[in-house]
Amino acid sequence: MSKVKVSFTVSIDGFGAAPQQSLENPMGIGGEVLGEWVFATRTFQRMHDKEWTFQHIRKDGGTTGIDDAFFARRFLNVGAWIFGRNMFGPVRGAWRDTSWKGAWGETPPFCNPVFVLTHYPRESIPMRGGTTFHFITDGIYRALERATAAANGKDVCIGGGVNTIQQYLRAGLIDELNLAICPALLGSGERFFGDIDLVKLGYTCTDHVAGERATHVALERHAAAPSQ
Amino acid sequence: MSKVKVSFTVSIDGFGAAPQQSLENPMGIGGEVLGEWVFATRTFQRMHDKEWTFQHIRKDGGTTGIDDAFFARRFLNVGAWIFGRNMFGPVRGAWRDTSWKGAWGETPPFCNPVFVLTHYPRESIPMRGGTTFHFITDGIYRALERATAAANGKDVCIGGGVNTIQQYLRAGLIDELNLAICPALLGSGERFFGDIDLVKLGYTCTDHVAGERATHVALERHAAAPSQ
Repeated sequence: MSKVKVSFTVSIDGFGAAPQQSLENPMGIGGEVLGEWVFATRTFQRMHDKEWTFQHIRKDGGTTGIDDAFFARRFLNVGAWIFGRNMFGPVRGAWRDTSWKGAWGETPPFCNPVFVLTHYPRESIPMRGGTTFHFITDGIYRALERATAAANGKDVCIGGGVNTIQQYLRAGLIDELNLAICPALLGSGERFFGDIDLVKLGYTCTDHVAGERATHVALERHAAAPSQ
Repeated sequence: MSKVKVSFTVSIDGFGAAPQQSLENPMGIGGEVLGEWVFATRTFQRMHDKEWTFQHIRKDGGTTGIDDAFFARRFLNVGAWIFGRNMFGPVRGAWRDTSWKGAWGETPPFCNPVFVLTHYPRESIPMRGGTTFHFITDGIYRALERATAAANGKDVCIGGGVNTIQQYLRAGLIDELNLAICPALLGSGERFFGDIDLVKLGYTCTDHVAGERATHVALERHAAAPSQ
């Protein structure tokens, strides 16, 4: 059955992004540590594109261990993505320059429709490699409805950021979270667990695997979602 | 040099204790999952005492892997302990029954002086095996002063709970934290990271080792403590 899932990375102290996200610091100032386990993998190195906002080229071509397997798994059986605006590109407010097509270059690695939550309408942007960015201005339920239809029986992956994931968690719409806990402190930024009670929402930890640069945990919902 | 250190366990969602701690549920309702990695170790099984409030006897005598090594390390070079009241025994308010000598039986595993923070004075209690409980009513600085003197060049370990550790963190008095992250969600309870910014306080993650039932991280303070 088609699932709605989340793939995300948090720091030891529970932050999903550092403060002051911008084009220069897409994960916030100091937030790049959250991506280090990803950047080191062969899967990432192979999909990496010189047009991306963030550049992390490794001469060794990337590692092939546990972290690599977990990162590759994030893309398996995904038929559509949902992103907060910041995941398309760390710019806020009205679209000033529509020639800029986001942080992911001409060939984003998503290979499927990506539904971007925003308050500012914009025409869909077809990219190379199967990714099309669609801009959704009528909320999380409509985005999920469209993503589910586009996924055509495959899974919908909510890629972040923190605020987007929290909205879907509170609405009881997420079946499974695949979290990487990276061995770093951020101290401040966006708290992933914030004021959300994942036990009350019906989640338990069902898997726990140590990678080279992160610990991978799976949280699955076993109980009914709360009524809305 | 003598260090002030913390050894503690937190859940994936950052809680250091579950809600409603009591004699029946010393780690709060559902909080025992935090101890599972400890209970499984040979070191714990060997120090385990049938008089303790919590009983976790394993027929296999306990495991000897990475978790066991990390748990044993918590006791190395420790010359004195500091506990919040709840760590002595999960009872609150004035001492009603002084014949009760805490949750740790006649032979607690600490083998050194333990300074218990409380608002209620009580005579010191010498136990078998080298542990003596001293009750400190004049605050965290005085407790640390006495523990440092008693440790006589060895380390002082702050054993918890969350509130006690947070007070010492905010005061800039902790050199090192050894945290175990257990693969479970608590959903509610006492947030270990609460509103504390460990980066601003000068800590970085210096070690990250996967055990069988927990991930072990070391946080060390590299910068000067903030002025008080």
